[in-house]
Amino acid sequence: MKFTVALCQMAGSEDKSTSMKTAEEFAVRAADQGADVVVLPEMWNCPYANEYFRPYAEPADGESVHFMNGLARRLGVYLIGGSIPELDDGRVYNSCFSFDRHGDFLGKHRKAHLFDIDVEGGMRFKESDTLTAGDTATVIETEFGKIGVAICYDVRFPELSRKMALEGARMIILPAAFNMTTGPAHWALTLRARALDNQVYFAACSPARVPGSVYEAYGHSLVADPWGKIIAEADAQEQLLMAEIDTDYVESIRRQLPLLAHRREELY
Amino acid sequence: MKFTVALCQMAGSEDKSTSMKTAEEFAVRAADQGADVVVLPEMWNCPYANEYFRPYAEPADGESVHFMNGLARRLGVYLIGGSIPELDDGRVYNSCFSFDRHGDFLGKHRKAHLFDIDVEGGMRFKESDTLTAGDTATVIETEFGKIGVAICYDVRFPELSRKMALEGARMIILPAAFNMTTGPAHWALTLRARALDNQVYFAACSPARVPGSVYEAYGHSLVADPWGKIIAEADAQEQLLMAEIDTDYVESIRRQLPLLAHRREELY
Repeated sequence: MKFTVALCQMAGSEDKSTSMKTAEEFAVRAADQGADVVVLPEMWNCPYANEYFRPYAEPADGESVHFMNGLARRLGVYLIGGSIPELDDGRVYNSCFSFDRHGDFLGKHRKAHLFDIDVEGGMRFKESDTLTAGDTATVIETEFGKIGVAICYDVRFPELSRKMALEGARMIILPAAFNMTTGPAHWALTLRARALDNQVYFAACSPARVPGSVYEAYGHSLVADPWGKIIAEADAQEQLLMAEIDTDYVESIRRQLPLLAHRREELY
Repeated sequence: MKFTVALCQMAGSEDKSTSMKTAEEFAVRAADQGADVVVLPEMWNCPYANEYFRPYAEPADGESVHFMNGLARRLGVYLIGGSIPELDDGRVYNSCFSFDRHGDFLGKHRKAHLFDIDVEGGMRFKESDTLTAGDTATVIETEFGKIGVAICYDVRFPELSRKMALEGARMIILPAAFNMTTGPAHWALTLRARALDNQVYFAACSPARVPGSVYEAYGHSLVADPWGKIIAEADAQEQLLMAEIDTDYVESIRRQLPLLAHRREELY
């Protein structure tokens, strides 16, 4: 079965309504071009810095969620809603809401691994100063089969992608904002390895890079196939990146090189 | 702490004594150049094809093991003995024997994942027709700390490298013979990803490619550092590949980007 995924590598704004307008424009264009699944980037409605997360946070019935489910319904597409800061019981989560073609809620992933890093001469960030981590792996059901959803730093942990694959995911979608330290060094390497090891399509959607903004994202949204090959890749600027996903190819690769079947669970 | 590893990307022979002579020449050269740890490739004493494994197999006190421990003792180096077909109780294993500077036995890894693959228009091999799989992960103790040892197809399974890292390995050594289908597509990608994800040095030692031989190995022995960067890489021909390992750098990377500490074991 074939379907088309669209990664909206959009530039966010400090103004939430502007970010919504941009997201809508990207999604409309994606639907016009035949997208079945539309993906927004991490923190698409909020600047990526600790001081913004709480002020921009909304509950699960807030305006950004209504905006997203309305968009999915109106365009008749699956929408994987990047992530937004979610306010729940006084805590703030980095959360991805997903919706089906009717705008119905499919599942929510809360980033489970918080990004606390301090690279000498490079990136420093401590998400855990403001955010609370989620406690589950997330696999949603679609007409194209199961799709795993994780967020950015979650991809650093091979266990999580493996868990989603073993739960039946044939594709993993990752809203993510790597930076100018880790992006050039690790982005494509990690995404391709997760695709190859788990024999899934792996699609990562980054915000566009905005020089001088509070967080310069690496960009380079990409889709890797189950053989570990990049089949679509953006540069750093705003771009709508489309790719065709073929679930039969997943099955074919899993037959030829049966990695998942060759696991020796009792050894690990 | 710094030390030097030498990967002996040698061409094997159908004649076992010729292979021993080649291995000895490589090891002597490595020791002359200051190697602390000398690594032989997978199946260095046996052509890589099912019909050879049993006829070439030896018990753990056979001539190839005596040859290797004698070499380690004479040269005063750690020897990670690639792999040989090991005969034990009627079964044949693909086994890596390791020795310290005194020639004392440090540990044995039996390939735990057998290579059964059937790529359309590419590689076909079914190791399980002749070989029996090992049942353990292997981490040896050296004066430079713990080193994980695995063999070739074992690297396809991120769980095994993770297990070795969690058991304290700061370096993983992999005798391995990828081929002309999987080598160009997956070799560097997989090795670099294991190094990066586990924040270890990852050193993979291949046989040299011998066009027209029963199995054309990819070659390209390489060493990746804990940041996922390749610090030494061979081409396809015979080559002694040396690299400096710095265990302090492992600690530094693990401090700056604390992936192992950020794992959420309860989720997987």
